[in-house]
Amino acid sequence: MKRLPFLLLAGFMGTIAQAQTVHSPTNKLTLSFQLSPGGEPTYQLRFGAKPVLKPSRLGMLLQGQPALDKGLTIARVDSSQHDDTWQPVWGEVKQIRNRYKELAVTLQQPTSNGRRVVVRFRLYDDGLGFRYEFPQQPGLSYFVVQQELTEFNLPANHKAFWIPGDYDSNEYTYTTSRLSEVNSAPIEPIQLKSDPKRVQTPLMLKSDDGLYVNLHEAALVNYPALMLDVDTQAFGLRSHLVPSATGAAAYLQAPEHTPWRTVVVSDKAPEVLASKLILNLNEPTAFAATDWIKPQKFVGVWWEMHVNKASWNYADTSNIKLAGTDWSKLRPNGHHGANTQNVKRYIDFAAKHGLQSVLVEGWNVGWEDWAGNWKEEVFDFVTPYPDFNVPELQQYAASKGVKLMMHHETSSAVTNYERRQDAAYRFMKQYGYDAVKTGYVGRIIPRGEHHDGQWMVNHYNRTAQKTGENQIMVDMHESVRPTGLHRTYPNWLASEAARGNEFNAWSTGNPPEHETILPFTRLMGGPMDYTPGIFQIKLEGWNPQRNQGKQVHTTLAKQLALYVTLYSPVQMAADLPEAYEQHLDAFQFIKDVAVDWDDTRILLAEPGDYLTTARKAKGTEEWYLGSITDEQARTQTVKLDFLTPGTTYEATIYADGQGASWDKNPMAYRIRKQKVTSKTTLKLQLAAGGGAAVSIKPVGK
Amino acid sequence: MKRLPFLLLAGFMGTIAQAQTVHSPTNKLTLSFQLSPGGEPTYQLRFGAKPVLKPSRLGMLLQGQPALDKGLTIARVDSSQHDDTWQPVWGEVKQIRNRYKELAVTLQQPTSNGRRVVVRFRLYDDGLGFRYEFPQQPGLSYFVVQQELTEFNLPANHKAFWIPGDYDSNEYTYTTSRLSEVNSAPIEPIQLKSDPKRVQTPLMLKSDDGLYVNLHEAALVNYPALMLDVDTQAFGLRSHLVPSATGAAAYLQAPEHTPWRTVVVSDKAPEVLASKLILNLNEPTAFAATDWIKPQKFVGVWWEMHVNKASWNYADTSNIKLAGTDWSKLRPNGHHGANTQNVKRYIDFAAKHGLQSVLVEGWNVGWEDWAGNWKEEVFDFVTPYPDFNVPELQQYAASKGVKLMMHHETSSAVTNYERRQDAAYRFMKQYGYDAVKTGYVGRIIPRGEHHDGQWMVNHYNRTAQKTGENQIMVDMHESVRPTGLHRTYPNWLASEAARGNEFNAWSTGNPPEHETILPFTRLMGGPMDYTPGIFQIKLEGWNPQRNQGKQVHTTLAKQLALYVTLYSPVQMAADLPEAYEQHLDAFQFIKDVAVDWDDTRILLAEPGDYLTTARKAKGTEEWYLGSITDEQARTQTVKLDFLTPGTTYEATIYADGQGASWDKNPMAYRIRKQKVTSKTTLKLQLAAGGGAAVSIKPVGK
Repeated sequence: MKRLPFLLLAGFMGTIAQAQTVHSPTNKLTLSFQLSPGGEPTYQLRFGAKPVLKPSRLGMLLQGQPALDKGLTIARVDSSQHDDTWQPVWGEVKQIRNRYKELAVTLQQPTSNGRRVVVRFRLYDDGLGFRYEFPQQPGLSYFVVQQELTEFNLPANHKAFWIPGDYDSNEYTYTTSRLSEVNSAPIEPIQLKSDPKRVQTPLMLKSDDGLYVNLHEAALVNYPALMLDVDTQAFGLRSHLVPSATGAAAYLQAPEHTPWRTVVVSDKAPEVLASKLILNLNEPTAFAATDWIKPQKFVGVWWEMHVNKASWNYADTSNIKLAGTDWSKLRPNGHHGANTQNVKRYIDFAAKHGLQSVLVEGWNVGWEDWAGNWKEEVFDFVTPYPDFNVPELQQYAASKGVKLMMHHETSSAVTNYERRQDAAYRFMKQYGYDAVKTGYVGRIIPRGEHHDGQWMVNHYNRTAQKTGENQIMVDMHESVRPTGLHRTYPNWLASEAARGNEFNAWSTGNPPEHETILPFTRLMGGPMDYTPGIFQIKLEGWNPQRNQGKQVHTTLAKQLALYVTLYSPVQMAADLPEAYEQHLDAFQFIKDVAVDWDDTRILLAEPGDYLTTARKAKGTEEWYLGSITDEQARTQTVKLDFLTPGTTYEATIYADGQGASWDKNPMAYRIRKQKVTSKTTLKLQLAAGGGAAVSIKPVGK
Repeated sequence: MKRLPFLLLAGFMGTIAQAQTVHSPTNKLTLSFQLSPGGEPTYQLRFGAKPVLKPSRLGMLLQGQPALDKGLTIARVDSSQHDDTWQPVWGEVKQIRNRYKELAVTLQQPTSNGRRVVVRFRLYDDGLGFRYEFPQQPGLSYFVVQQELTEFNLPANHKAFWIPGDYDSNEYTYTTSRLSEVNSAPIEPIQLKSDPKRVQTPLMLKSDDGLYVNLHEAALVNYPALMLDVDTQAFGLRSHLVPSATGAAAYLQAPEHTPWRTVVVSDKAPEVLASKLILNLNEPTAFAATDWIKPQKFVGVWWEMHVNKASWNYADTSNIKLAGTDWSKLRPNGHHGANTQNVKRYIDFAAKHGLQSVLVEGWNVGWEDWAGNWKEEVFDFVTPYPDFNVPELQQYAASKGVKLMMHHETSSAVTNYERRQDAAYRFMKQYGYDAVKTGYVGRIIPRGEHHDGQWMVNHYNRTAQKTGENQIMVDMHESVRPTGLHRTYPNWLASEAARGNEFNAWSTGNPPEHETILPFTRLMGGPMDYTPGIFQIKLEGWNPQRNQGKQVHTTLAKQLALYVTLYSPVQMAADLPEAYEQHLDAFQFIKDVAVDWDDTRILLAEPGDYLTTARKAKGTEEWYLGSITDEQARTQTVKLDFLTPGTTYEATIYADGQGASWDKNPMAYRIRKQKVTSKTTLKLQLAAGGGAAVSIKPVGK
């Protein structure tokens, strides 16, 4: 890292200007910081001449002591610039440039023991990050943040892509509305009824004059998640921190700082998706070795439970207690998915098709009445059901060169999980597991805490650290949405933390536009385990009675495209082997597609409408392209000018078939091959709710 | 166990009497159960003709469903009797007789899905135990107890020995008052301001006509502690359960039951102390081996911190963070108690005088600002300070035949402790520790939970189980008061859970009556680690400035007597080696006195006034006698008729010296020897705040 101080106005120099202005490295953005005559700090942001954020207040409400929001003076101003590049362990690109100008304003409150807080801004060409820092000081040692008073005041009534501010779930479909129309009252809560004008981040906004603004946070550590309360009259957004069990937001000890508040901004939608600002604002990993971390594709005993062909539970009883139950005495229900024979079938399939691993859910005792009872002792993470033979499967998988992926559903009894984590990871290492999918369904124990509160944030991060120390990769479901911490914990391959493909199996599903919004919202913070790849779109085939009218809200071809458009280093081939075996020609794309990349090009993008992305597979000359649309059929014109000039490639195009549409004819697809070069332009015909996937492999010069 | 059914009135027999009456095995007590015309259950208790409890309501308030307190019918009545004896792993007596009559009334609520609750009464000659049981049933599976409605309606304005109903601390001096005068408003709270008319159990009561009544509970498992709200007009007591973070009391799953509510009653105070009712109502241990459990005496690096001669902390800094601090770089304050050389001094002393173990507090990093900040990451339980050499001390102690006792102060960050317990116990086993003193100072994390709530109750019990599985003995400080669970977990040697001797070092202290009340209150549930044996009564000698006016509120001789009158299988010789070395003649009693017993005789007792107890050492013919008084000087006439007739013994009497008194001349003692037999009567002169200790060893027939 190089750090070039180019401006320093320290307190002892006498008067410090009450306003400070910084321009981004190539002057695209301008940040201004200002102190009012009453000592109230504000900031504002411009994109060229266009206002991104109007003057917006900064401040902190502390418990039992005066707020840090007025009566402040500028004690010191530090400015610097920074420019370097770094290599992620895995990712969408091989190298990431981290280039910003920094402004750190030290504010002092003379009326309150001279308490100090630093507001540190990092201004990039594609956005702004800023955070509050509390230096070690006599007047502020241990303290409690009651609420954060940060504002993001928008200049107009932008279009917003939002989900309700539920403290415990982010598994919502997005509502697209003007800011003035934000109102989640009619939306059925997934877990917790929220204030109707509260929304979650990442919040994607678009102005009428074509500016794309994304609000989120980076490096969420030891602090609750940020939500935003919308002023539907003035279009101001104000921070709302998820409370702890006591109602307070964060228990802190100086020196400490908040996460970065992030504003990604561009007049081109693809640039929002290409932004690495959030990753750049995270700390590099402290793990000495990372070569054991493997991006991967996997299948799993999972979708067959969602489509009511099998069950997580072994017996159809209820009112089970973990302690004192003799599991061998339970009467099996005859359709328990995680049985040794069935798992071997998945192992065989993975081995045959070169997929790295097999997830098995429902392998361990406790699923008979695991959810909804706010019960602490549900799972022990080490006791298999009688029909799941751990050593036998370990041997079998090893003999086939396949890894088993562990599953730890906690049912949100997190105290129970924490006290058993040591033993659970020892069990994993003993039986050859090197990756775990965790789950947090239900209400949190410690009771009164929330999925997105400080205590749980610390839990997720501690789990990333602890699994990392054990050389275990982790994929967290029902966790807080990511904030780029996979830079710090590269073993934290992905999270769910949004409405995944599974909702198509047992709810009204995800509307066709859903996957065009996710990259602009949830994925801004990090990879998602969306579980794409459902081929059997209509689910009645699996269980006519229980799946009546259920279907995935895309075409089959779009399911393929998602492997490219929804970036993740861990991608499930989520459907059943028997579904794939009927369409092995289409399955070839899933076999081929990479999960780690040297380069990524966002070619066409508009949130809520369409997205076309091309990626270059790590260490190869192969490219993979995904193109998706919402409920509108579209023709996408894709220039392949990112290919190496002079090289000829064979493109295999997995496209929607004649007459395809997500609702009436979702499984019609056609596969064609053609030679392409950097001069080729593809015209991809996307059906309503459809998509196209393209593999592009060099065949010669 | 034998169980002889002697009466069965089942539902199918038609009418069941709305009133049921049971007499105790020798008819001392009579219990009546009755259902009002409105289906409200009540019970009452008589001692001979004297009412102990007037008709008192029973019931449960449940969250989100109708209360179980009226509209009930009797569905079934089961009666039985029981009589056997059992051997505790350690204790006050060798054998315990468990003889009771049982009445189990199954109540049904026709208006609420026929929900059932069983009230099970066990009537002993020395008291009553009863509990609520929730059988497995369709209408009541998972449920939440909002409050328990059990009443204990006393017939008159009894004298009560009470402490305030603080959810988080029991470290109070006792107030002796009429029930009508119960009011804790003027009492400074230790942790949490309580309702002024709320008191804790064990609650000791005495009627004007000489009946002693003790209210408490037995087998507190998966349920919050019981407190009592006093009706100061009608002298009724009503149960109040300590709430969880959500405000509800208990999260339960049927089949489940409450702890036993206990009423020990006698017209003789010694019989209250001799009662084994609470132990009998606990479950036998499930540990296969218990021979590794060793009652013991110990010294420790501890009191020197209390008397400001040394510190727990290594450095005099504050604002330390567990993670990221380089402890070797801290500047030592020069008076850190837990340094290798000092610990060796204690090991030498223990070895020389035959004490089994040495406790060391402040050995591990984190004490610089450990308390009062509601901070989660304070201690890691495995990292010693730079001046504490774990392997060296392990070797040194082993070479001297002494055990080191581990110390785990959690600072009430219990989530932090739980996630580190596995590693902490592995560390202990690795370095030869087989006993741990735990501590819970401060506010509980999970924030919002209380020391005496269900979540913490489960924690203590789980810790007893987990230490037991690791063959580790445990002594818990700042835990919930015991309820006889040491029968189930005999490795749970003792708890503090009351105001210990330490308060004499840094507060107004414990009044001289304190130790005469403790056996009738706190000790009813189990042993206490009171830490007796302070010889240097006036503390200014250790640190004139900081200990100005501080002293222990007893004579030296009374400190000796406490080893007998306050039963515990783990007894500290709490003072510094240099204090003992100046009084080795008196120290001889501490060396001699047993910590495990074949027999116990409560000879003279009156709560708040005096107590004389004799105990026969396990497996020997030696007896040890302790006699204490409150602030009144007394002569106690003690018949030694418990000695074996025909045997001559040598009694060594450690008595208050001429002119001794706790405040003016506390360290005056004299030691005399005399031959005694079963026909001897001793006259023990106890000074104000004084006592006497007597060892009685056979010298021949």
